[in-house]
Order: sequence, then C-alpha cells, then structure tokens
Amino acid sequence: MKIKVLITGGTIDKVYKELSGELAFIETHIIEMFNRGRSMADTLSEVLFLKDSLEMTDSDRQFILDKCQSSQEEYILITHGTDTMVETANYLAKNIKNKTVVLFGSMIPYSIDNSDSLFNLGVALSAVQLKDHGVYIAMNGQVFDFDKVQKDKGLGIFTNT
Amino acid sequence: MKIKVLITGGTIDKVYKELSGELAFIETHIIEMFNRGRSMADTLSEVLFLKDSLEMTDSDRQFILDKCQSSQEEYILITHGTDTMVETANYLAKNIKNKTVVLFGSMIPYSIDNSDSLFNLGVALSAVQLKDHGVYIAMNGQVFDFDKVQKDKGLGIFTNT
Amino acid sequence: MKIKVLITGGTIDKVYKELSGELAFIETHIIEMFNRGRSMADTLSEVLFLKDSLEMTDSDRQFILDKCQSSQEEYILITHGTDTMVETANYLAKNIKNKTVVLFGSMIPYSIDNSDSLFNLGVALSAVQLKDHGVYIAMNGQVFDFDKVQKDKGLGIFTNT
Amino acid sequence: MKIKVLITGGTIDKVYKELSGELAFIETHIIEMFNRGRSMADTLSEVLFLKDSLEMTDSDRQFILDKCQSSQEEYILITHGTDTMVETANYLAKNIKNKTVVLFGSMIPYSIDNSDSLFNLGVALSAVQLKDHGVYIAMNGQVFDFDKVQKDKGLGIFTNT
Repeated sequence: MKIKVLITGGTIDKVYKELSGELAFIETHIIEMFNRGRSMADTLSEVLFLKDSLEMTDSDRQFILDKCQSSQEEYILITHGTDTMVETANYLAKNIKNKTVVLFGSMIPYSIDNSDSLFNLGVALSAVQLKDHGVYIAMNGQVFDFDKVQKDKGLGIFTNT
Repeated sequence: MKIKVLITGGTIDKVYKELSGELAFIETHIIEMFNRGRSMADTLSEVLFLKDSLEMTDSDRQFILDKCQSSQEEYILITHGTDTMVETANYLAKNIKNKTVVLFGSMIPYSIDNSDSLFNLGVALSAVQLKDHGVYIAMNGQVFDFDKVQKDKGLGIFTNT
Repeated sequence: MKIKVLITGGTIDKVYKELSGELAFIETHIIEMFNRGRSMADTLSEVLFLKDSLEMTDSDRQFILDKCQSSQEEYILITHGTDTMVETANYLAKNIKNKTVVLFGSMIPYSIDNSDSLFNLGVALSAVQLKDHGVYIAMNGQVFDFDKVQKDKGLGIFTNT
Repeated sequence: MKIKVLITGGTIDKVYKELSGELAFIETHIIEMFNRGRSMADTLSEVLFLKDSLEMTDSDRQFILDKCQSSQEEYILITHGTDTMVETANYLAKNIKNKTVVLFGSMIPYSIDNSDSLFNLGVALSAVQLKDHGVYIAMNGQVFDFDKVQKDKGLGIFTNT
C-alpha cells in the first residue's frame, strides 16, 4: 500500500527563529518524524507549501485538491494547520470519491517541548491504512468523518458535531 | 468506544537510574503520553506489571490473557517489550475471539532522545479503534496480523512473515 | 556563599501558548533548571517581572537596581532578555559598587528544542561565584565586563567591543 | 584564551543502543553541546577514549596526565565519569603545576531526558576561564578544589570534605 503525504504547513512544522524571536517555517519535519517512528510504511512525501492555515486561500485549497486528484496513490495523508482543517476537509470531500484522505496537524510544534505531533502522525498514518474511501480528520487520538467534526477553539480540541 | 489499556512494561517505560547508571522500571509513562497527545479517546489504563519481555513467563502471559478475557471492554491495547511480543500475541490469539487486541512497544524508551514511543502509541490507538476483532501488532507504522509478523532482531524492525 | 537570583523574563522563560499560537510568559523555569543541573549552590530566587527586554522601561531598570541594592546577598544573578541586556548592565554598574552582579539570558527558550538556556545558566552561576565585585554579562560561553561587550543582533551573539 | 578539551567518556556521552537495549559509547556529544550553547569560547576538543570511569586504569590516568602536560594550552577541561573523578583529579594535581585544569561530568547522559550535562559544561567552561592555576572539579553548580571534594555515592552529589 503506497501512501502519498502532502505537506502544507501548520503548527506542526513551525520553528523558533532565534534572531527575530518569532515562530516561522523553514522546512518540514515530517520525514524526520517518520524516521524517528522507525516507520516502514511505504510513504512518499511532497511539500506543497508551508503556511499557517489561517492564511490559506481558496487557490491553496484548489491546489491541494488538484494534487489529491492527480496523485496515483489511493491513500493520502495531509498535514494541515488546525484552524481551517475542517474547511479544507469539506472542500476536498466534495470532489474526491475513490481515495482515502486523512488530514492531521498538531497543537504544539514538533520542535517545542511536549509536542503532540508525533502521536498525531501515528494516529493518522494508521487511519489512512485502515479506513475505507472518504475524507477524515485524525486529531486527539480519534479519527473523525469530515462532516461530523469541529474544532473547539476555546479548548483546542476536535469534537464530534 | 471504551478502550482498555493493559501495561506490561517493555522498553517504552524504561528510565535511567542515575545512582546505578542502569535502565530500569519505576512507573509507566502511558498516561503522560496520552495527555501529551491530547488524546480524547476513552481509555482506561491498568498496570499489570513492568517487565522486560525477555523475562516474561508463561504465568505472566496467562495473567495478561485473564485480564483480556475478564475485561468488559471489547477494545484492548497492550504495551509490551518487543522481543517476545509476537509470542504473547500468538498466546492471546488462541484464546480470544470476540475482541480487538493490539500490542505495541518501542525500540527506544520514552524518556530517551529520539524515542519512537509516542508515534507507536498513536498508530496502535488508531488501529484498536479501526480493526475488526482479532489480535494485532502495531509497530514501525504498520498494523500486522498476529500470525503474519516477526521481529527481525538484527534490524530491530517488525516485518511480514 | 549565598546567591540572589533576580528573574526578569527574556527569551529564556518564554513558552508556546497552544491556543493563541504565540510565545508568552506564564512562569519562570529557573528553579526547574537549577534542579535539573542538580545545583547545590546556595541560591534564592525572586521573580521581579516577566518581560521581553525590548519592553523594559526605565522604571523597570530602577526596580532591578533597587532590588540589587537592597539585597543582603553580595552575589547576584539576573536573568534578562538579550536585546537590552547591555543597557541594563550599564545602568546597574553606575550604581552598584560592592557586589558581584552577572546578567545572562538565552537565544532560544528553555522550552524549545536545542535551547542554550541551561548552558548559559551554568556559565553565569560559575561566574558569579568566581568574579570580583563588578557587573558582568555571561553569554556565549564567556564572561564579559559590562562596558566591554555588545550584542551583534545580526549574528545573535555577544562580542567584545 | 585558548582552552583544550580532553574527552574521556563517562555518563555524559553514553547513549542507548536500541538493538541491545544497553547504554554504551558511540561518539562524544561535547562539540554538539558547545554549539547548542552557542559558545564562542576558543576551545579545541580531543577524544582520548570513551570509558566508564569505573573501568579507567592507571595507564589511562597516565595518558590523561601526559596529554595535559604536553598540551600547549594553559587552560584544560576534562570530561570524566563521576565515580573516579576525584581520584583522577588527585593524580593530575600531583604532577601539574602551571595550568588550570577543570574536570566535570554528569549524572544523566546528554541523550536522556532531564540531563544535567549542558549545565555542568557551562559551569566548568566558566570555571576554567576564571580560576587560578590548579586542579578543580565542577559539579552540582559549584567549583571544588581537587583535595577538598568527595562524591557522595548514596546521594549522587559532590560535597566538600
């Protein structure tokens, strides 16, 4: 089972820039995370862009959709900021029928203490291999259908609608 | 979906004892790991014992089996040392029919740099929620049937038989 | 030898706020860092405030000076943001004659990967015990006289003037 | 001020070997630690050997002494296991007169959670730059004269005799 991994940024890949004192994107950590997890799953990663999901535009979402549709792989993982993850999942679900797509992200960057990133990657990687066709969100140790999930921004967790 | 988590030790829970300079068990890290992963899955954890799996006896395996059988939960996660994980999985599979049981562990303790523990917990937690009844091993980013997996001790990875 | 530790904030104590996605102050990490270093030095810590040093005012500097002057201890460590550390050191040096005062901070928060904080604390703690009376800055593995040091903001390092 | 760094092993450099499940030496972390501390001190490092200090022999100590004596640098840092650090310090002190030598180590390896290594390196690096000629041990946030220190093995700390 070959799995395509589309990387779009989000909290998971943010790092501290020591000269400016701000969090920003330099490169993705996803390959390093697969290696750390000693993953032998057959994954092929591609960075589409590295963005905060609040800054993601319609054309960014269309680009993700194009990549999903043109991908030869039936199984697709997408890293994504949590703030608009549900919106992107809905956008993709309208147009993708014969693939299993799982979106995930994190609340704390991989580079910062006590990050949930590695756990979330594990949950999502398992889900993309086990779920039927459809679009899903894997967060908080659970796998949600795209149309039955919301982010509670006050608590910072995903819950069923 | 309620998930029982049976904790038996293994590399995942080993820590460095600074006075002796050796690795040993003090307590489990699994609860801390669920919290770090911000898991909202409905898990109930129980420490059966904390052992290196090379020191696990037949009566230890029987104890794990008894706990699986007496558990009210249909979904069971088991932390386990990697060296005899396949053996325990086979022992359980002979006797458990109407539950989903997923065993997992790690190659590097949670308390040590670059540990795979948090990733493996994510993979296993997702698998126990998504797989049909049966006994499985979740390692290296994959979910294996109990009777189609072996540990390659030279490489330190689980592969299909 | 009793050492007073005055805590004023700076990068060293910043943490990631997961709901806002920003770095901010919650509490100091200095006590935790002394414990991690297994320090048996006789230190007494006091949080004056937790501020980015770019936001430090003249009255903040006067407050630090008052605390140094009223302190019964002859040896004083001060945590401080790096951007105006030299300015505060000069301000203190004009008014403090019979004490050893060492300022230090970090380029990467203690809570973030690859932080220099623990190293810098070690350098500063050693310096405050070994230097004669005066005001010093301990950064980049070196101990500088307050009037012979500058921060190169392009490189993010302290150098001799 | 040029500083020679002689590396001999000890807890500080031990790492977890995932195939054997044991702690062992692969390479030193000292250079990486200086970089992490953003040290601009003028240090030149040399690995003499990587040993647990309980296995250090008289000829190992003689080798360290030879290296100290033949070193062109007046300032010397030595990494060393804590168990026989005092013994080596005494051995060196008998024969070295015109140099400042500081030994240090750690109770928890650099590669393991909550390590004191980076703090201890900072304390020692500051001490070697600030102390007069002599042989010293830098541990637990303090700098001890070689002949006024002992390791309390029950508590795992160095104290004055």
